[in-house]
Amino acid sequence: MKTIAVILSGCGNRDGSELQETLGLLLAIDRHGFKYQCFAPQGSFKVVSYLDNDGETGEVRDLFAEAARIARGDIRPLDEYLANDYAALALPGGMGAARNLSTYAFDGTNMNVLPEVEKAILDTHAAGKPVVAMCIAPIVLSKVMGHLGVKLTLGDICAASRAAVAMGANHEVCGPTDICVDNANKVITTPAYMVATHISQIFDGAENMIAKLSEWI
Amino acid sequence: MKTIAVILSGCGNRDGSELQETLGLLLAIDRHGFKYQCFAPQGSFKVVSYLDNDGETGEVRDLFAEAARIARGDIRPLDEYLANDYAALALPGGMGAARNLSTYAFDGTNMNVLPEVEKAILDTHAAGKPVVAMCIAPIVLSKVMGHLGVKLTLGDICAASRAAVAMGANHEVCGPTDICVDNANKVITTPAYMVATHISQIFDGAENMIAKLSEWI
Repeated sequence: MKTIAVILSGCGNRDGSELQETLGLLLAIDRHGFKYQCFAPQGSFKVVSYLDNDGETGEVRDLFAEAARIARGDIRPLDEYLANDYAALALPGGMGAARNLSTYAFDGTNMNVLPEVEKAILDTHAAGKPVVAMCIAPIVLSKVMGHLGVKLTLGDICAASRAAVAMGANHEVCGPTDICVDNANKVITTPAYMVATHISQIFDGAENMIAKLSEWI
Repeated sequence: MKTIAVILSGCGNRDGSELQETLGLLLAIDRHGFKYQCFAPQGSFKVVSYLDNDGETGEVRDLFAEAARIARGDIRPLDEYLANDYAALALPGGMGAARNLSTYAFDGTNMNVLPEVEKAILDTHAAGKPVVAMCIAPIVLSKVMGHLGVKLTLGDICAASRAAVAMGANHEVCGPTDICVDNANKVITTPAYMVATHISQIFDGAENMIAKLSEWI
């Protein structure tokens, strides 16, 4: 049974992995007869409030431990990821992709990507295997795979899509459940909450993405 | 459009709402053309580790603020719940139901239920509206509706099912995606991770539960 590696970035849409996107991804993987293995970087992140506003609370939490909540404890450190052991690599969205896996939320096109995240993506690509991403997570692919002219979607034309183009990506406008397929680079992306408004759209977009991925692996 | 109220108990299966069960529930509600509104009690809870073991870490977190992560910030205090405004009440599982909404995890059949949780369930029942619950959450219904001889499932015969019977409930053995229907009390339950092993079973069980609920509301 083929296993897809999933990189988590915390637990919750404002400072971690978006939960609907992550579980939509895991559900689609299971429905297509694949297994999943969750990974997360080790390190810490700044907690964002989910109540009245979305400002930082001043609290700092352990990224790996919080990501483990989504994985029901079954999670591995990302620096142990070996591309040869997995059929594909997947990045759900949520602001954790822009705050914790990378610094896009703070630095825009001057963003950095965590070394183990960059390595996982480049190793997967070098092994000829697919990378899939949802919502804001394709911004990370723009930085890491921009030199390859990666084609991806961040939904509508927006600040993030302009940043992606500035970093070398080709951006394709997509609706909430559409997928953008880069056959040359084996990259599939879907906009999810970049443009979606309902939970069912998130699960449909994830399903569409994994359905296309299943043709490749 | 009818709205179903959902009571959350934190964020994660070991010390809050089980995420797959919660989002399976929200997805099924959306797919059936209903709306959902998340609620949580105000208060605090003891954090449990999701890493090497499931022991308490010593940290205490705000229950309402953590539950808000699942709800993407769209959550209301449970003491504001009015049964007349909603078509049904739903409780996903996760150990938060047994640790935070009630004291079942600590006290067994001597358990207490948070007053606002008990009131929400009894008000819903008194209004002639359905209550649905997943996984371990039916143990809360056993305590609150045991005097009504509520029929429910906690999966196989187990410590929790024996406790439910001791508190007055009728227990029905169910497989992972089965539902137990109490027509007299308008209660539907499904075992989810009491017996399930895969994420797709959780989403199928939630779908089966809401499909039956849709016949009533």
